[in-house]
Amino acid sequence: MTKEHKENQDVVRTGSSGGKKAVVLVSGGLDSATTLAIAAHRGYECFALSFDYGQRHAAELQAANAVVAANRVVYHRVVAIDLSQLGGSALTDQAIAVPTSGAGDPGIPITYVPARNTVFLSFALAWAEVLGAKDIFIGVNAVDYSGYPDCRPEYIAAFETMANLATKAGVEGDGLAIHAPLITLTKAEIIRQGSRLGVDYSLTVSCYQADPDGRACGICDSCHIRREGFFAAEIADPTRYLT
Amino acid sequence: MTKEHKENQDVVRTGSSGGKKAVVLVSGGLDSATTLAIAAHRGYECFALSFDYGQRHAAELQAANAVVAANRVVYHRVVAIDLSQLGGSALTDQAIAVPTSGAGDPGIPITYVPARNTVFLSFALAWAEVLGAKDIFIGVNAVDYSGYPDCRPEYIAAFETMANLATKAGVEGDGLAIHAPLITLTKAEIIRQGSRLGVDYSLTVSCYQADPDGRACGICDSCHIRREGFFAAEIADPTRYLT
Repeated sequence: MTKEHKENQDVVRTGSSGGKKAVVLVSGGLDSATTLAIAAHRGYECFALSFDYGQRHAAELQAANAVVAANRVVYHRVVAIDLSQLGGSALTDQAIAVPTSGAGDPGIPITYVPARNTVFLSFALAWAEVLGAKDIFIGVNAVDYSGYPDCRPEYIAAFETMANLATKAGVEGDGLAIHAPLITLTKAEIIRQGSRLGVDYSLTVSCYQADPDGRACGICDSCHIRREGFFAAEIADPTRYLT
Repeated sequence: MTKEHKENQDVVRTGSSGGKKAVVLVSGGLDSATTLAIAAHRGYECFALSFDYGQRHAAELQAANAVVAANRVVYHRVVAIDLSQLGGSALTDQAIAVPTSGAGDPGIPITYVPARNTVFLSFALAWAEVLGAKDIFIGVNAVDYSGYPDCRPEYIAAFETMANLATKAGVEGDGLAIHAPLITLTKAEIIRQGSRLGVDYSLTVSCYQADPDGRACGICDSCHIRREGFFAAEIADPTRYLT
């Protein structure tokens, strides 16, 4: 059995968990759109959570709205948080230029936002507790973004352990699970899986500096990874690139 | 050696770590005021972090400002976050009455805010990373607030483990520490330690429903615990109680 077939079976096998609530982090990017489709396909009642955190690409939030509208989602909440005032990242700090030299830097990229996934998962945890949801989905990926500490399996596992000590559900109930279904997949594998589930990738935005209409620059690291993903997946890339 | 003497020695022994930056969570309550004094006494350059999270007692933030003003603090940041829209707690949800029947409920109290300490520590972690701070102080206490899952030592340890997997400092540097110096102390022990360090407890507000002038109701759980703490510590209680 190929890895791809096994992933597909995983999706089908867990499709019977209908009626359970899940909080799904939706950024408007390719990965989170795929993650939302996976959670919905597994039968969860999906509560989508997005953040307005001072990101420079406002097109991202518009994409999040479009992605949510294209799926069966019970409720979409956009929480405004103020990571930008903490500074320290090209994605939120206007004083740092976005790198356009292509992927390949072996270190932690300048586009890293401090503790971003921890902040996002913390809000997801708070909402999950209020909703009585035991499942949180996040589209982190350790393959293409190997430089981000908070995209690794060991980080997700540690957050899950902490979450189960932090909350009523963990202490009194039967536990919370943090699902990161894309974490070990390549971009091409993610695109193939999403395409099988009917994800409309034309709604998503990956570019770090997309224009207000959602058109991608075509030269930033994120555009490189996206383009190469569609090429490797042998699926037509619906992205509107400026160059 | 009594426990109290040992605590005092701990404070003195670690007083040589001058120049190191620490992020200190300051709510305006008795515990966080003591924690800030401990961090300052240990020689840290303190960066105070407070939250405007829709709490009903606005007096709390005024108290936080007063507590910070009374200490050597490099910078005080108040981050606005929107926990209230998530609901689920008497402290932020206007539809739930604050219990005034006195302390003693063995379960998780209704004043529990979902995942609050996890959200707060996540922001502290983000700021610490930007500042290059390796130390975060939080005034949680497992004795008086035994019903709060996220006030227990095992929770703090799990957050620290997660934080060290989440961040550049954990992955590339020499690690982050989450300090909870009050976690095993009684309220009386906290008050005695703070008094030795010169904390002005008249600036602090514990009451869940303090009036705009910072006067305490005198009947809520938090007022009960505070009153009994000063009584047991044999230190005059400077709190202005309405009843």
